[in-house]
Amino acid sequence: MVIIMSPHATGQDIAAVIERIESAGLKVHLSRGEERTIIGAIGDVRKLDPESLQVLPSVERVVRILHPFKLASRDFSPESTVVNVKGIPVGSRSIVVAAGPCSVENRDMMMQTASIVARANGTMLRGGAFKPRTSPYAFQGLGLEGLKILREAADAFDLPVVTEVLSPEQVDLVSRYADVLQIGTRNMQNFALLHAVGKSGMPVLLKRGMMSSIEEWLQAAEYILSEGNPNVILCERGIRTFETATRNTLDLSAVPVVKKLSHLPVWVDPSHGTGRWDIVTPMAKAAIAAGADGLLIEVHPAPERALSDGPQSLKPAVFEDLMRELQSLALALGREIYPRRRTSEAKSNASEAKSNESSE
Amino acid sequence: MVIIMSPHATGQDIAAVIERIESAGLKVHLSRGEERTIIGAIGDVRKLDPESLQVLPSVERVVRILHPFKLASRDFSPESTVVNVKGIPVGSRSIVVAAGPCSVENRDMMMQTASIVARANGTMLRGGAFKPRTSPYAFQGLGLEGLKILREAADAFDLPVVTEVLSPEQVDLVSRYADVLQIGTRNMQNFALLHAVGKSGMPVLLKRGMMSSIEEWLQAAEYILSEGNPNVILCERGIRTFETATRNTLDLSAVPVVKKLSHLPVWVDPSHGTGRWDIVTPMAKAAIAAGADGLLIEVHPAPERALSDGPQSLKPAVFEDLMRELQSLALALGREIYPRRRTSEAKSNASEAKSNESSE
Amino acid sequence: MVIIMSPHATGQDIAAVIERIESAGLKVHLSRGEERTIIGAIGDVRKLDPESLQVLPSVERVVRILHPFKLASRDFSPESTVVNVKGIPVGSRSIVVAAGPCSVENRDMMMQTASIVARANGTMLRGGAFKPRTSPYAFQGLGLEGLKILREAADAFDLPVVTEVLSPEQVDLVSRYADVLQIGTRNMQNFALLHAVGKSGMPVLLKRGMMSSIEEWLQAAEYILSEGNPNVILCERGIRTFETATRNTLDLSAVPVVKKLSHLPVWVDPSHGTGRWDIVTPMAKAAIAAGADGLLIEVHPAPERALSDGPQSLKPAVFEDLMRELQSLALALGREIYPRRRTSEAKSNASEAKSNESSE
Amino acid sequence: MVIIMSPHATGQDIAAVIERIESAGLKVHLSRGEERTIIGAIGDVRKLDPESLQVLPSVERVVRILHPFKLASRDFSPESTVVNVKGIPVGSRSIVVAAGPCSVENRDMMMQTASIVARANGTMLRGGAFKPRTSPYAFQGLGLEGLKILREAADAFDLPVVTEVLSPEQVDLVSRYADVLQIGTRNMQNFALLHAVGKSGMPVLLKRGMMSSIEEWLQAAEYILSEGNPNVILCERGIRTFETATRNTLDLSAVPVVKKLSHLPVWVDPSHGTGRWDIVTPMAKAAIAAGADGLLIEVHPAPERALSDGPQSLKPAVFEDLMRELQSLALALGREIYPRRRTSEAKSNASEAKSNESSE
Ligand SMILES: C=C(OP(=O)(O)O)C(=O)O
Ligand SMILES: C=C(OP(=O)(O)O)C(=O)O
Ligand SMILES: C=C(OP(=O)(O)O)C(=O)O
Ligand SMILES: C=C(OP(=O)(O)O)C(=O)O
Ligand SMILES: [Mn+2]
Ligand SMILES: [Mn+2]
Ligand SMILES: [Mn+2]
Ligand SMILES: [Mn+2]
Repeated sequence: MVIIMSPHATGQDIAAVIERIESAGLKVHLSRGEERTIIGAIGDVRKLDPESLQVLPSVERVVRILHPFKLASRDFSPESTVVNVKGIPVGSRSIVVAAGPCSVENRDMMMQTASIVARANGTMLRGGAFKPRTSPYAFQGLGLEGLKILREAADAFDLPVVTEVLSPEQVDLVSRYADVLQIGTRNMQNFALLHAVGKSGMPVLLKRGMMSSIEEWLQAAEYILSEGNPNVILCERGIRTFETATRNTLDLSAVPVVKKLSHLPVWVDPSHGTGRWDIVTPMAKAAIAAGADGLLIEVHPAPERALSDGPQSLKPAVFEDLMRELQSLALALGREIYPRRRTSEAKSNASEAKSNESSE
Repeated sequence: MVIIMSPHATGQDIAAVIERIESAGLKVHLSRGEERTIIGAIGDVRKLDPESLQVLPSVERVVRILHPFKLASRDFSPESTVVNVKGIPVGSRSIVVAAGPCSVENRDMMMQTASIVARANGTMLRGGAFKPRTSPYAFQGLGLEGLKILREAADAFDLPVVTEVLSPEQVDLVSRYADVLQIGTRNMQNFALLHAVGKSGMPVLLKRGMMSSIEEWLQAAEYILSEGNPNVILCERGIRTFETATRNTLDLSAVPVVKKLSHLPVWVDPSHGTGRWDIVTPMAKAAIAAGADGLLIEVHPAPERALSDGPQSLKPAVFEDLMRELQSLALALGREIYPRRRTSEAKSNASEAKSNESSE
Repeated sequence: MVIIMSPHATGQDIAAVIERIESAGLKVHLSRGEERTIIGAIGDVRKLDPESLQVLPSVERVVRILHPFKLASRDFSPESTVVNVKGIPVGSRSIVVAAGPCSVENRDMMMQTASIVARANGTMLRGGAFKPRTSPYAFQGLGLEGLKILREAADAFDLPVVTEVLSPEQVDLVSRYADVLQIGTRNMQNFALLHAVGKSGMPVLLKRGMMSSIEEWLQAAEYILSEGNPNVILCERGIRTFETATRNTLDLSAVPVVKKLSHLPVWVDPSHGTGRWDIVTPMAKAAIAAGADGLLIEVHPAPERALSDGPQSLKPAVFEDLMRELQSLALALGREIYPRRRTSEAKSNASEAKSNESSE
Repeated sequence: MVIIMSPHATGQDIAAVIERIESAGLKVHLSRGEERTIIGAIGDVRKLDPESLQVLPSVERVVRILHPFKLASRDFSPESTVVNVKGIPVGSRSIVVAAGPCSVENRDMMMQTASIVARANGTMLRGGAFKPRTSPYAFQGLGLEGLKILREAADAFDLPVVTEVLSPEQVDLVSRYADVLQIGTRNMQNFALLHAVGKSGMPVLLKRGMMSSIEEWLQAAEYILSEGNPNVILCERGIRTFETATRNTLDLSAVPVVKKLSHLPVWVDPSHGTGRWDIVTPMAKAAIAAGADGLLIEVHPAPERALSDGPQSLKPAVFEDLMRELQSLALALGREIYPRRRTSEAKSNASEAKSNESSE
């Protein structure tokens, strides 16, 4: 941290800053210029709140040098993190696609959707059982019933489950049915929830707050990581801007920016990011080209009957086309779409391993 | 709701829209023009999700006519709501000022602050015991200990307490110490929390999400109201924009806009709204001139030693000057700053009434 | 300017930075810490582009200390500037109100409006002859004809004229009819136009770009000032945000922020700032309470027939009420609304002075 | 246009709306419901300002059905426009890349840059001679001298020239040296300039305003088109949001959105769109994947010595790598990067054609 004193700073003003820095256990590096004095704070400056310096007399400006996160930072963990979701390596050369409806609506549509996703080489099944809805009068999800349906449909097609958790009390319940806990955009700074999913140790899909800077997003990840849970996947899903042609503005530059700042895998959700099914395909491709490790895509057997987010949900045939096109695109970029059969192989290997274990 | 069909809409397309509307229990009003057909949905259209119509074939556009909230709407409750906080009428001609530190830091500073607030004719005491912090490494508040200190300091000066609650599980605990439950900007769409404070029946100070539209804010209020809790106070605290000279952009136009749309009282928080103590005074005045019913202001006996939000906290003397200036301003606007003695009178009356009751 | 070198910076990297600074005629202040070296550039750093340093090898961050404007800065001219508009002191204790229609539509409506403005104690007459319109098919103003009408109406009621100029070629023409040249929000960074009005020496009303930071706004002012024209009045008129309940978000905190940074007078335009006549009154009051030196308000004899901006234009009676209310508000704030008679007195004094001169 | 009357609308209110519509030469389509009357305006509603209806008594809401542009609309010109720039088809299956420095600085660096661009298969040469700079003290470009250098360098390598024009008076001069006139983001609504480049008939690269909606952008294009100039190329270059990790937020979803709304070619400028050279490569790829017809990229022989925008300029080697990678990406997407030799062939054909003509 660098503290720039005003030209009128007295010796006492400077002493006060030094004292504050030292009392936080940091060392001081003083540099007296002709016009002004500049004070550096050296050590683990994360212990020192820049605000507490900014209000001291004659302090003109406080400049943070380090990023305000550590466990999430690539500086401290240069190697990219690969999160293991039931044997699927998220954050590797293989790009994963989690697809499914916005909400779990009933058993039938979930079985249908799971079959579509699996057949098109989707990697995971998504679907909301607990839905965050702007209006208290909108469909709020099927709750536990929804979790059960989701699990059943996913298991029938050997797909891991991604689903949202809305409050700390739900974490245990949802963890029994899900493979990845999704934190929605509105909850990115629900710190009690971050603590709870951190403690769960489960893979977490942390969506970017629609009003959150990249730096705040990585600090939200830091909440989870600092509970000892390294399994964090980030997901860009559009930020709020003045433009109304799209529901949100998908900030794809967040992908390379985060890749530089952090070792965590990054997904993109072009469905919520645009709110329009008719541009999901080009934006999904753009996400891959920008370097995303995965996609979260809303697919519905009949979007016109969806209980939520129909306008942004792909019809099965559009989703199938997209998956085909993504595969050639990934290859051109030196990557691939994660091939489903590997999951099954991994699984059967795993179950063999398990039966070996149990037979011993 | 008005559904505008495209010029190419077939009879079947139109029939599908009609069916959807009628299946939601609404009546249809059809208007066939030369070029296009326009379909009106009549009845309680809140039961009908505009999205579900938008995806039907040949639907060009769906236009909502009614606001998506009802209990919060002035259309349905023309009279302004006055929320009673320990005898203090919030939303009346009298403007209230809740002041205090960002965080409760220790007993001493809270006693000092309460004394400053009371002496300067502040109406309530604010202070955070559970703090939502962007970084997991920042001071997170004293928790229960903080609640106790806050209550003690407030009682010593006969001030009601406003304090934040961060998660559903905390609602009971915090309700034992607070008179108003504050929902922070990051939790405006934490729906589990909205349900919980709704059920509590306590007065709720609902801050606007920093990236939430006014319409979303009133729907968040609707969550609380629809749990049967009418005691909702809204608080504008700045929204996020491109401007960095201030921490947020205080949207004072939200005050008259909300006053027209809703019957609920509206406060303004110029401290978080600007992030700069040096412009809190003009913005507090502007808030009153725009029609606010109350102010939430951060005051600290020694901002340079504050554990959070020092740069935006007023020193005692500045706060005292502000309170004096607000009084003349309020009078010029045909209002007044709520006079503290009335609280005491109300209290002693109330306690007399109580002792009468108990003596019977 | 402070340049923070990375921990890996070599002696050569540091030398390169030093050389760049010195070649701009500045002095270097070097401070070698244990971990990193910090380099200060001392002198008129406005000559040194921070970008040119940022790209040098091993430069971690470049921190500007000074604001990027000088003539507009209060640091260099502590005294508030008072711009003289035909004897009216803009930026003094007296608050001025420029009012009139969005567009000059015809002679009749302008005479009517001028009479309304004068009777209600408005200080100046506004009206657009050259209109910036989003659509090429919208009414583009009456041009020269409009200027003539505007001048005639203003003279009939002894009001100075504020009107917009859209391009450098128009500056001479418009200057012949106007007392204040308005630069619209879309032209705040039309640098050719800024040069032209700078050269004209005329009072300039510089609206804030709807997408411009306060710092950019003051740099736009610097363009005009650096042409030798000190007569710059700033005007906040709303910025673009995600909120759609209002046409723009009126950033009233810009008023005290600019007052601290700059010596220039600041006005507020609550008409374009909100886009809604029904909240112009509270926002005009809030502007005054925030410290504005003037208001720009759209008034139309019959807003429902206006050729532009009818929805945000006040009816005459509403404007009259507003002016009355502003007067008591201003007094409570230790200011006043500029009293029209003084203009006339000033004028007659001025004309006496002139006739004296000419008679000599 | 659909006008929704309030439930309390009187017959007189309805008559007033009808009269206004008919007086604009449009037909009325009336639909009286039980609760409210809905009025449709049929015909060329672009002649009718929605605002003028919105202020009429008892009008609750006015809903525009058509887009406010016509010549720019794909509805009226379904076929994609291909703009011919010296024989290069912009908006075809072939993707073009215009590259070069932010500013033309001197002859040497321009010759070098042109050579780099040509060798790497770039399609056109960009460079600013008249620079729009936020500060009056920043380098403002070499002006005419810069135009000459730019032309010479471009001709030496057979590249068309893209360069910015800042004001109407410059249009003639710049047109003598340029093949494409660039309108900068700050001038998107400089209507006098739009008129001037419209009249010139030259190919125009119209950058999106950093705070302009897509609808406003297409209306700006309409200004140029309605002057009879069909040669408009749109360029997304980032919009302003709250995020500060990038200079702007590159809105890639604008590409497919505009492609649906309009027949005009769309380019993307990832240099200004991000402000960071280190993420230009992924964002350039993402732009192509999103469907862009061209790229505008800042390249500088020595970014650390650039007089403007060094931090976002690619070094030659990075640019060469990018061009190679774009080629395989384009092929995977069923497109290609425009091959330079075709330009030369086209040219030699054209010059043959010309010499034939002249010899006749
Ligand atoms: C609600 C969802 O997402 P978000 O939180 O990004 O809006 C979702 O994925 O269904
Ligand atoms: C954290 C606070 O507020 P907000 O939620 O508005 O940021 C607070 O009032 O201390
Ligand atoms: C067009 C006007 O203003 P702005 O430039 O602020 O939109 C105006 O004052 O009429
Ligand atoms: C100034 C430029 O671009 P923009 O107008 O997009 O900022 C440029 O291309 O050099
Ligand atoms: Mn969804
Ligand atoms: Mn605070
Ligand atoms: Mn106007
Ligand atoms: Mn540039």
